[in-house]
Amino acid sequence: MSAFARLAGAAIALALIAQPATAARKREPAAPPPNEGGLIDNVDGLTLDEDGRVRRFTGLLIGKDGNVKRLLAAGDKRPEWLDFKLDGRGRVLMPGLIDAHGHVMDLGFRALRLDLFATTSLADAQNALGRYAREHETPTWIQGGGWNQERWKLGRFPTAADLDAVVPDRPVVLERVDGHALLANSAAMREAGITAATKDPPGGRIERDAKGNPTGTFVDAAMELVWRAVPAPLPRERDEALARAQDILLGSGITATADMGTTAEDWNVYRRAGDAGRLRVRLLSYAKGIEPLLAVAGTGKTPWLYGDRLRMVGVKLYADGALGSRGAWLKHPYSDAATRGLQFLDDTKIRNLMSRAAMDGFQVAVHAIGDAANAQALGAIEEVAETYKGDRRWRIEHAQIVDPADLPRFGRTGIIASMQPVHETSDWQMAGTRLGEGRLGGAYAWATMIKAGARLAFGSDYPVESPNPFPGLAAAISREDAEGQPPGGWRPQEKVTIEQALAGFTTGAAYAGFAEDRLGSLTPGKRADFILVDRNPLTAAPRELRATQVYETWVGGQRVWIRK
Amino acid sequence: MSAFARLAGAAIALALIAQPATAARKREPAAPPPNEGGLIDNVDGLTLDEDGRVRRFTGLLIGKDGNVKRLLAAGDKRPEWLDFKLDGRGRVLMPGLIDAHGHVMDLGFRALRLDLFATTSLADAQNALGRYAREHETPTWIQGGGWNQERWKLGRFPTAADLDAVVPDRPVVLERVDGHALLANSAAMREAGITAATKDPPGGRIERDAKGNPTGTFVDAAMELVWRAVPAPLPRERDEALARAQDILLGSGITATADMGTTAEDWNVYRRAGDAGRLRVRLLSYAKGIEPLLAVAGTGKTPWLYGDRLRMVGVKLYADGALGSRGAWLKHPYSDAATRGLQFLDDTKIRNLMSRAAMDGFQVAVHAIGDAANAQALGAIEEVAETYKGDRRWRIEHAQIVDPADLPRFGRTGIIASMQPVHETSDWQMAGTRLGEGRLGGAYAWATMIKAGARLAFGSDYPVESPNPFPGLAAAISREDAEGQPPGGWRPQEKVTIEQALAGFTTGAAYAGFAEDRLGSLTPGKRADFILVDRNPLTAAPRELRATQVYETWVGGQRVWIRK
Repeated sequence: MSAFARLAGAAIALALIAQPATAARKREPAAPPPNEGGLIDNVDGLTLDEDGRVRRFTGLLIGKDGNVKRLLAAGDKRPEWLDFKLDGRGRVLMPGLIDAHGHVMDLGFRALRLDLFATTSLADAQNALGRYAREHETPTWIQGGGWNQERWKLGRFPTAADLDAVVPDRPVVLERVDGHALLANSAAMREAGITAATKDPPGGRIERDAKGNPTGTFVDAAMELVWRAVPAPLPRERDEALARAQDILLGSGITATADMGTTAEDWNVYRRAGDAGRLRVRLLSYAKGIEPLLAVAGTGKTPWLYGDRLRMVGVKLYADGALGSRGAWLKHPYSDAATRGLQFLDDTKIRNLMSRAAMDGFQVAVHAIGDAANAQALGAIEEVAETYKGDRRWRIEHAQIVDPADLPRFGRTGIIASMQPVHETSDWQMAGTRLGEGRLGGAYAWATMIKAGARLAFGSDYPVESPNPFPGLAAAISREDAEGQPPGGWRPQEKVTIEQALAGFTTGAAYAGFAEDRLGSLTPGKRADFILVDRNPLTAAPRELRATQVYETWVGGQRVWIRK
Repeated sequence: MSAFARLAGAAIALALIAQPATAARKREPAAPPPNEGGLIDNVDGLTLDEDGRVRRFTGLLIGKDGNVKRLLAAGDKRPEWLDFKLDGRGRVLMPGLIDAHGHVMDLGFRALRLDLFATTSLADAQNALGRYAREHETPTWIQGGGWNQERWKLGRFPTAADLDAVVPDRPVVLERVDGHALLANSAAMREAGITAATKDPPGGRIERDAKGNPTGTFVDAAMELVWRAVPAPLPRERDEALARAQDILLGSGITATADMGTTAEDWNVYRRAGDAGRLRVRLLSYAKGIEPLLAVAGTGKTPWLYGDRLRMVGVKLYADGALGSRGAWLKHPYSDAATRGLQFLDDTKIRNLMSRAAMDGFQVAVHAIGDAANAQALGAIEEVAETYKGDRRWRIEHAQIVDPADLPRFGRTGIIASMQPVHETSDWQMAGTRLGEGRLGGAYAWATMIKAGARLAFGSDYPVESPNPFPGLAAAISREDAEGQPPGGWRPQEKVTIEQALAGFTTGAAYAGFAEDRLGSLTPGKRADFILVDRNPLTAAPRELRATQVYETWVGGQRVWIRK
């Protein structure tokens, strides 16, 4: 079924054209010329050129190959012979946005499971859990996530007892919003065999009461103690999660995304979708460690599969945890706790893993949030890059808290700083608490990164944050959150221009995934991935930009999503 | 690169035809008609029709889609406009053969590693090992097999010291010809942590000297003590193994094969080859158990991938072991040992596994060698088929020793008996020893299976046997081995006709894999998978048939292998 047939209620009038109305075929016995493809006309079109400058147009001609064929200015002659022609009715047409850092399957499962993201208190979350348990008798294990004790203003981690009060009889496991802590009820801890005797694993922490009894929250590596008791999802649940994730992404205007941590199981889900023609979003996959990387891709990046809809590009490694759960690894102790966070890999190990991937030409993306983790990742890249030369595009994911002394190192080795503007607006108050004002000189330092010569790629880290890229664009240019806080922006010297922000979500994100030859800008020969939206991001004020609505999403010249 | 460009030294003259020599284009201003495809002419062609009758032809016209377009008789007019035309010089052209039961990756690894099968003394084996070590600097671990101290007339097991004399510095592990003992050198024992203190495991024995020190040979369950130290193959080794397996299969005239026990890792190897255009043999995959089945294929058979070159069809389950090692599960004790063999699954478990696969539409293939295992598999199929109706094609693999009372049950439920003619000629003497003459009424009972209404599919169980299907065809019609033993054939009433044997390796094997709509016969609309051979299997005496040589192998209308 074509994208057109699938989507009822098109918001834009669609004219299927067999021949131009003006042609007088009877007097012209020669065969008509071949059609030139499809035309989206009468749009307020914008894209970034490869040099970062804005290019405007009013018509987009799409070739039969699904690529951009021509951008047409107001005065340009329109082709006569077309497969189809759509009237854009003056709407804004812009490149599909690319999220440089997300978790596709997690997004889908989050949508299928109990979502506590919107809860504002423990009581609120308890109500949601009780309702979900009543409405979902299967599967036995209740899974969910999105909680944030900071948002709840709880002043402590939630506990198993908090959950037992609502669901005493079925195991419940709920991930923290950042994915760096897991909350279990007593039934789940029982199934997992967790007792007071269970030791904290390296890189992890079990929250305990004064007597040493686990209270229900498992941080970082300790999460695995509970996870291993949770039944694996069924294949149809996985397929459904991917379908849900794609709908959410396309509806947010995302046409391509990095998948930061693809397991071998995830890969099989993507391939099933690709084989069945159900891949609509383009997925740039980074394997969750060396093992799935080698098992899936073997001796080098996979080819682009399914018409550039899937590729395994490289590997995701973790240097540390997250700031909220104090898992980010710092050079000096946290301001609000006697710990430096969690170091996940020693210097030798991280170099070995990076070398193992690089020797077969894979790209390496290292999660580094704390300043010590960033320094370690930088040092490892600088050393490994001596051996593995050429166009490597070493990535540091998050690059959130960087020692100002280390910032210039991003530029020197051509590192990609893969950052998430919405993390800044979510975290700025917490960051101040965790680090103290004196250590914020290199925090979420987008403008400084650009100045240092780093390549910026922007994303959302969904489902940690919403995948909607427009709040990200707004945060990038304002450093104000949805409530306009703090007025004028937090550390406003790190704001970027709207062109730079847009580049982060388009050309920069494409470059970060070795995809700039085909994705990221509406340039003849590249994929016709674009969205129609209700306002112009170049001129909208941050508050307006944040509220942008997507009307339609097109991938490879086909309409794959439409607002109902 | 095309199959033509890739293969140098074509044995048959190849003429690329831009236009027929007789055409006089200047007098005909109209455009020429489109080419009709490619023609292999002047062949002694044969195929089975769908009803099992032989059809003869002298020309094969291949469409641009790689399918058979027309079979041409001697008097039929040949098309004028062609992409290419080959002169078959009267050679025999027959359908590519399909092996209904093989192990693709095992075949490839066997070929990559040290093969001591032909060695006649320890010194001979030591020479072979030394040469192999010099020629293969990687991988570090040297693996191989095929040794037999009886054949060497050694009068003892070989020792680690025997190997250390040749390879002291790299670990070496060599399997005995029967797979029931493993010989390790000192480096391998060191890596595995084997010392005098290592205990014999249940079901296993470590050979030791007078002081109790392990001497290097590990019998049965003790083999695992060493195996667990052997590194998993690297991705490029797996890719190379698949390439080797494909070469061997194509060179034997096999154009499609069931892969009976595909792991998730194997599947990734097949997909890498498919993605890179390196799949030449068609693989019908049966997952090694439920876990890889669901992980890979999810909720149903995969689509045919890569132009019908790969598909996961179903699952392989094991009801018992093998006859030689007395692992086949019998209704009554072995004649030569006080055991009934090994039952792998209880009745409930096998039904549950079969139901789990069938509920998602997967095909089920159950390995059953002993009469008790066959009775169990039949009972399970009869029961599960009550729930899972429709065209299920339940398969029993080997169906080797069947209680004559159970034979009619194969026909009643439309079961596919997937059998290996060469196992009969390899095993007949041993089968008599293990079972006694009184229990052979349903042994390797091909003709009786057909009479009972079962669908026969033939294979080789490579690499347990050679994948060469011609000895299989010869065994099927003669029940004599390569030395003509026993003269007139063992239990000759179970011989089949050459047409039935050929059907087992073509139409029957295609049907067994739900592939008869596209594979198995040279019929217009089906894939042009065929071989050119040096004699006519329909008329060759068994001894001649066994020695058939393949000149060329074509898959999907492309020449993918040629004898050098």
